[in-house]
Amino acid sequence: MMKFTELRREAYEANMEIEKQKLAIYTFGNASAFDPEAGVFAIKPSGVPYAELSPQAMVLVDLDGKVVEGDLRPSSDTPTHAVLYREFSGVLGITHTHSPYGVAWAQACEAVPIYGTTHADHLTEDIPCTEVMRDEAIRNNYEIETGNQIVQAFRGLNPLEIEMVLVACHGPFAWGKSAWKSVYNAAVLEEIAKMAWLTRILRPGTPRLKESLKRKHYDRKHGKDAYYGQA
Amino acid sequence: MMKFTELRREAYEANMEIEKQKLAIYTFGNASAFDPEAGVFAIKPSGVPYAELSPQAMVLVDLDGKVVEGDLRPSSDTPTHAVLYREFSGVLGITHTHSPYGVAWAQACEAVPIYGTTHADHLTEDIPCTEVMRDEAIRNNYEIETGNQIVQAFRGLNPLEIEMVLVACHGPFAWGKSAWKSVYNAAVLEEIAKMAWLTRILRPGTPRLKESLKRKHYDRKHGKDAYYGQA
Amino acid sequence: MMKFTELRREAYEANMEIEKQKLAIYTFGNASAFDPEAGVFAIKPSGVPYAELSPQAMVLVDLDGKVVEGDLRPSSDTPTHAVLYREFSGVLGITHTHSPYGVAWAQACEAVPIYGTTHADHLTEDIPCTEVMRDEAIRNNYEIETGNQIVQAFRGLNPLEIEMVLVACHGPFAWGKSAWKSVYNAAVLEEIAKMAWLTRILRPGTPRLKESLKRKHYDRKHGKDAYYGQA
Amino acid sequence: MMKFTELRREAYEANMEIEKQKLAIYTFGNASAFDPEAGVFAIKPSGVPYAELSPQAMVLVDLDGKVVEGDLRPSSDTPTHAVLYREFSGVLGITHTHSPYGVAWAQACEAVPIYGTTHADHLTEDIPCTEVMRDEAIRNNYEIETGNQIVQAFRGLNPLEIEMVLVACHGPFAWGKSAWKSVYNAAVLEEIAKMAWLTRILRPGTPRLKESLKRKHYDRKHGKDAYYGQA
Repeated sequence: MMKFTELRREAYEANMEIEKQKLAIYTFGNASAFDPEAGVFAIKPSGVPYAELSPQAMVLVDLDGKVVEGDLRPSSDTPTHAVLYREFSGVLGITHTHSPYGVAWAQACEAVPIYGTTHADHLTEDIPCTEVMRDEAIRNNYEIETGNQIVQAFRGLNPLEIEMVLVACHGPFAWGKSAWKSVYNAAVLEEIAKMAWLTRILRPGTPRLKESLKRKHYDRKHGKDAYYGQA
Repeated sequence: MMKFTELRREAYEANMEIEKQKLAIYTFGNASAFDPEAGVFAIKPSGVPYAELSPQAMVLVDLDGKVVEGDLRPSSDTPTHAVLYREFSGVLGITHTHSPYGVAWAQACEAVPIYGTTHADHLTEDIPCTEVMRDEAIRNNYEIETGNQIVQAFRGLNPLEIEMVLVACHGPFAWGKSAWKSVYNAAVLEEIAKMAWLTRILRPGTPRLKESLKRKHYDRKHGKDAYYGQA
Repeated sequence: MMKFTELRREAYEANMEIEKQKLAIYTFGNASAFDPEAGVFAIKPSGVPYAELSPQAMVLVDLDGKVVEGDLRPSSDTPTHAVLYREFSGVLGITHTHSPYGVAWAQACEAVPIYGTTHADHLTEDIPCTEVMRDEAIRNNYEIETGNQIVQAFRGLNPLEIEMVLVACHGPFAWGKSAWKSVYNAAVLEEIAKMAWLTRILRPGTPRLKESLKRKHYDRKHGKDAYYGQA
Repeated sequence: MMKFTELRREAYEANMEIEKQKLAIYTFGNASAFDPEAGVFAIKPSGVPYAELSPQAMVLVDLDGKVVEGDLRPSSDTPTHAVLYREFSGVLGITHTHSPYGVAWAQACEAVPIYGTTHADHLTEDIPCTEVMRDEAIRNNYEIETGNQIVQAFRGLNPLEIEMVLVACHGPFAWGKSAWKSVYNAAVLEEIAKMAWLTRILRPGTPRLKESLKRKHYDRKHGKDAYYGQA
């Protein structure tokens, strides 16, 4: 029970950070925090404005998407979160936003090209964009299929190295080793997406960052001899 | 009398939200709240800065645009509000803004194309743009004719499903089942208009969202089996 | 003396509004308030950050640009203000900013085209842009010549109807019937310049607003039968 | 010891200004303050969010990049700062940011063209952009080589007159006669970069500011007969 108290608090704080970082307005967007031992995650209730949230309002859900604890209906995107927790082992937090530059690339159905070191500080590939969902999948179980689309986009990619994605025609999902880290990654996605948008419009033929710079920046933060941050 | 107290308060809070959401500067923009039983709406006084508003400053007006109660002159756009309350049954609040991305599409005389699910969460069509008003109508009764232009743009469209419009060369009007909902819709309009602007500039040929995704997103929030929000 | 106390306060409040409306960063920009009977205006001291301003810090200057009262050196743009107060009878406040959209049009040496009613609510012409100053004038007395350039750009235009201008390669000046009104006009200029920028990029061939709409919007706020605002 | 207390405080305040001016999010960016007599500079610790900084958390480092005092690991960009303090005599503060418009020009590998007087108030040349680093240099000692790239870009330029640079594919560095002045210059860089971006997109062929205007604006602030600011 105390464990869930902490999990609710983590999810609550991540959700509040979505609004603070201006990654969504009103009730748009949602974040969750996962407890892998209990097989349970805490997520934003559906359609509730950020100003009305509290740790107690978070809904606890298992990996089948069933409510375990909580009076409110969970986010309509809950099944997408459940798929990602099941498939991306090691992920402990997920954030979904409608931040405008991320959405613009998603609506253009284009991956965000890696143009500079701000991007490479976080990942060495373009921010992937899923395929547009087929009509059959949309009619089937839309939110589960959204998770499946993301999983499919990560065939051959490591979700612990690339902690963000664009769902085509929709918008950003990000994740990480905590709920807080997932919303941090959602904010980074928006910042990188904005920089890439400004770069593309300024000079349409800008080439991608070269391999040596990508590796250098990623490895100094995330490689085995990383020297960024405190030990 | 107490009913009007409440109506003034609703109109006041919606007007203050216009400024809080940065949908207009200084005295631009206005919101109103309608009481259909009394046939009266409360609206912002003309030319008064947001910082100086109070519930008491709201002006009560009937559907002929005549002042029923209040010391101040009502918004110059009052006759437009009156036309919409008369013609769009079920609408209980209206907001007019000069938000910059909405204005940009209006000045370009172009509907905001539906490019993604953020848009489809709220309406399944482009945000309509009226015709440019004819000179005769401008000379006639401009603010009433602005309402007429909007009504005309909704021939064949349902104003309870599409709760927003661009008046060509002018800017956004939004409405809803409460004054608060109308300003929410005005903020959504600006957010969608910004995302569409960024998408169009990034990839000029971006196609509209396909039918199946439009229906899915709209229906999960607004359809008969809607599962977004709290019951 | 009390008169100047009031004049200093007006100038101070207008300067603080420059920062509040984000029309300039750090020490950029300046505002002044004019007392036509005394032939004196109060202006921001040169190079002092907004956070360090006070009514007492304002410098009192006559129309020859000579300091009448005050311990600090006045804004380096003081001679430009003096020219405008001398030449534009009826102007009681002037604001100069470096707001980014206004500067962009000024750097492109292009007037801001009148695309919509937000613009026409304030003026019925494009926001004028001066000629680029000739080298001889630059070597002569630059700040006085900046004023002269503005006066020249207004040959045939009424500065009490068009209360704003772009100085080519430089940025915006705005004025009005009070210091406060001048900074209001500087904020309006930036908002209109942003809307026009977004419109131009969205649809490069957008035509100017037609005559009937220009007149209607301007006259309902400023014409002899104006019905905007409180009587 | 008291001297270092002051140095830490200066570095701390400059770092906090990075966040206040929105020049970087979360842990991005860093600022340092240099004491040339002691041959020591105080710099932000690596990977610590701005909200958690304090004067005590600043790390003291000598010009070989060795930690002199402090419990935390210094910014990973410390060797770049050390190179610049060694090579650019007279510089007493350095700021590195990831501000979006500055990054956009850096990712496009293009100097920011001098289009107007806001730019010329601070420098009379384009904001230089370094060469893209060679693979060998990246493998060698990346952060030292970043400093070397900057020094190389300043062959024939005076770093006391041009106090800012873009590192290609990376982002802005700025410096000045104090830590505070360096972050001021970083904010100016972003403002100028934004204005230039807006100008370029509005009118792609915009010519650079002419020589006479460049000299006039720079000299009135920085020349021997400067008359901007207080004596």
